[in-house]
Amino acid sequence: MRNANDPLLKSWVKVPEDSDFPIQNLPFGIFKTNELNPRAGIPVGDYILDLEVLLEHSFFNSLKTDVKNTFNQPFLNPLLAKGRLALSEVRNRISELLDINNSELQNRPDLIEKVLISKNRIQELKPIDSKNYTDFYSSEQHARNVGSMFRDPDNALLPNWKSLPVAYHGRTSSIVGTNVPIKRPKGQFKSKDGSIGFGLSQKLDFEFEMAFITCSNTELGEPIDTNLAENHIAGLLMFNDWSARDIQAWEYQPLGPFLGKNFASSISPWLVTLDALEPFRIEGPKQKTEPLDYLKFQKPSHFDVQLEVILRSGSSETLITKGNYKNLYWNICQQLAHHTVNGCNIQVGDIYASGTISGKEPDSYGSMLELSWNGEKPVVLNDGSERTFLEDGDEIIFKAYAEQEGIRIGFGELRNRAISN
Amino acid sequence: MRNANDPLLKSWVKVPEDSDFPIQNLPFGIFKTNELNPRAGIPVGDYILDLEVLLEHSFFNSLKTDVKNTFNQPFLNPLLAKGRLALSEVRNRISELLDINNSELQNRPDLIEKVLISKNRIQELKPIDSKNYTDFYSSEQHARNVGSMFRDPDNALLPNWKSLPVAYHGRTSSIVGTNVPIKRPKGQFKSKDGSIGFGLSQKLDFEFEMAFITCSNTELGEPIDTNLAENHIAGLLMFNDWSARDIQAWEYQPLGPFLGKNFASSISPWLVTLDALEPFRIEGPKQKTEPLDYLKFQKPSHFDVQLEVILRSGSSETLITKGNYKNLYWNICQQLAHHTVNGCNIQVGDIYASGTISGKEPDSYGSMLELSWNGEKPVVLNDGSERTFLEDGDEIIFKAYAEQEGIRIGFGELRNRAISN
Repeated sequence: MRNANDPLLKSWVKVPEDSDFPIQNLPFGIFKTNELNPRAGIPVGDYILDLEVLLEHSFFNSLKTDVKNTFNQPFLNPLLAKGRLALSEVRNRISELLDINNSELQNRPDLIEKVLISKNRIQELKPIDSKNYTDFYSSEQHARNVGSMFRDPDNALLPNWKSLPVAYHGRTSSIVGTNVPIKRPKGQFKSKDGSIGFGLSQKLDFEFEMAFITCSNTELGEPIDTNLAENHIAGLLMFNDWSARDIQAWEYQPLGPFLGKNFASSISPWLVTLDALEPFRIEGPKQKTEPLDYLKFQKPSHFDVQLEVILRSGSSETLITKGNYKNLYWNICQQLAHHTVNGCNIQVGDIYASGTISGKEPDSYGSMLELSWNGEKPVVLNDGSERTFLEDGDEIIFKAYAEQEGIRIGFGELRNRAISN
Repeated sequence: MRNANDPLLKSWVKVPEDSDFPIQNLPFGIFKTNELNPRAGIPVGDYILDLEVLLEHSFFNSLKTDVKNTFNQPFLNPLLAKGRLALSEVRNRISELLDINNSELQNRPDLIEKVLISKNRIQELKPIDSKNYTDFYSSEQHARNVGSMFRDPDNALLPNWKSLPVAYHGRTSSIVGTNVPIKRPKGQFKSKDGSIGFGLSQKLDFEFEMAFITCSNTELGEPIDTNLAENHIAGLLMFNDWSARDIQAWEYQPLGPFLGKNFASSISPWLVTLDALEPFRIEGPKQKTEPLDYLKFQKPSHFDVQLEVILRSGSSETLITKGNYKNLYWNICQQLAHHTVNGCNIQVGDIYASGTISGKEPDSYGSMLELSWNGEKPVVLNDGSERTFLEDGDEIIFKAYAEQEGIRIGFGELRNRAISN
């Protein structure tokens, strides 16, 4: 069978060398143009493929899955609802059509004009509409950093941390896409003198996370086995869990973070499929504390994906952290198995974020809280200015990509600017 | 103007004396029958009014609101989306049509047969489909009870509790309606010897809460003022926040409850409007700790609603707690203002539960955890058996009603049986 991940595949669509979107990637997203309503697309090189136009011209007739009315939609949910295998089928078909050895579309200049839209003409939209969003806390270094700062450096990890993937529920109403400004929230905080203040957060922060998206509805009461978990997972997005540390610190006991988080979260535009990430599957860290049976797994389900956070201030950009998605203790299959072991059901389009991803090195920490050690060690930017937390006008840019043999499976960019009004 | 709450109003539909659904109530819900698909209805006495049939026969032509395609739906969301005033308009119109002095429907025996369906022929369904569910923690006695049991009786309330309405996000996928069995969850717990066990929860519990439901979509970044909050609230439901105390105790630090809660929550079938509860509006407790400005309010927004929990075991029923919705420190307007003060947006159909409602008297506590003081004081049932937590087969029945001048504005029943498979 043809392998859509084959590094030797070439497309007749020109793909710049440093592009996130070679023929081996083919992630799914939602875009619009001045003329076109929101719809599903796949980026390749500097173009976006309009899937609805391909459908209208019968290019999907050979598929087993009926994809009618899944592309001309404002969110990917109807497509995701077709399931993991259907997504593979669509991706494989597009790979075929874009292959330099395939003439079906290549020889139709009249159509190409309609099907391939320059990335400069499109607006990337929020790709999914979610009813459920869970945030894990699965990076050991992040949990240690936070535990050290706010509790006790000698007992930074709580006793349950290596026994189960700690997580909590977040809010879906305030999840936005790329290029949407993030309004600095107001709220209560405890001042240094012990009094309770109110006003704009002075500790606005990002958290670099990756999130997996589910593509099935399960029945309440039916747990998912670790070894079958990936059948329910469509792919990954970048996730920014915007945080207001001063609001969070005062409110979070005993029931967890609330207003310090739910003013906004943002997700990246292109859903990179697990299929495309297959060549980047790697072993995670040894779990020396033996997991309970329901958390044991056969196939490694960590992925080697490099992460970058750039802070743009005025016209100056500074790479403030470089991490890797593999820096998690719990993998996505363990996360999903744990989430459902009590019978909790999952739904199409659910977001499961990893928690802030921090590596061992201080320059790989995934939040300003950790990079500046709660304000003690300011981060110096390329324009000479310093940051402990984010200032109005600062733009946070996330990038993520897996790379080998000259093939870069990228996630595009997630950009959001902090504003006060 | 005609007042739909007037205690002197009588209907031509016979309403038994102890009915939850006199002409002064008229709550909204979703029902189906063997012949009819799910649709919106209003209970009156022992009948359910089919709103779609009334629409088809032009009984809503006089309304300002266009209610087409809002009744023939599996959830109330499209109707709620019309807003608070539209709901009032529909309720007022139904009150008019059912009035003993009105002949429009009363004189149409052919139609009455179609419009009024005996409650024995219908199945009550989950009335709303929610994207967001927040659980507050607003009963002072409940917070004190939990704080005493698990932390320190001398400092049972945490320092933030009287400064803000503590809350956290829950999961919507596992919210079910009445008569749906609740499967006892499996999970991790810490055994007495300190080892980590896994299996069926041995501490299955209910929590009696009331929940308000929102009927508008607000913009991200736009807080809601306490004094305008009720414009966004359609009405109230009973809410059972099913809990597994052993799972919860082991997992909840530091990010709050997760699998100990998200295996199931249940909501009652009939949304009682704030309009219908207007005569039962009362002052809440004095807030001696002065609230910050954004939590100050003009009109009292507590409601005098009596709550009962019945445990049915075999054929024996025991009233195990009697509480009142007024036993909350924070009112619904303060809750909504707090939730949005950081700019968090709200959506149509959101659920905002009160947290367990416990009064000062031990027989008014709203959970087995408190009634049995974490298992130390078993609750004796009418059949002579004892309970610390729930056993398989136990059915938990919630009732709620506001009553004065012989008029009972009731919420019907929320019934769910605990099962193991």
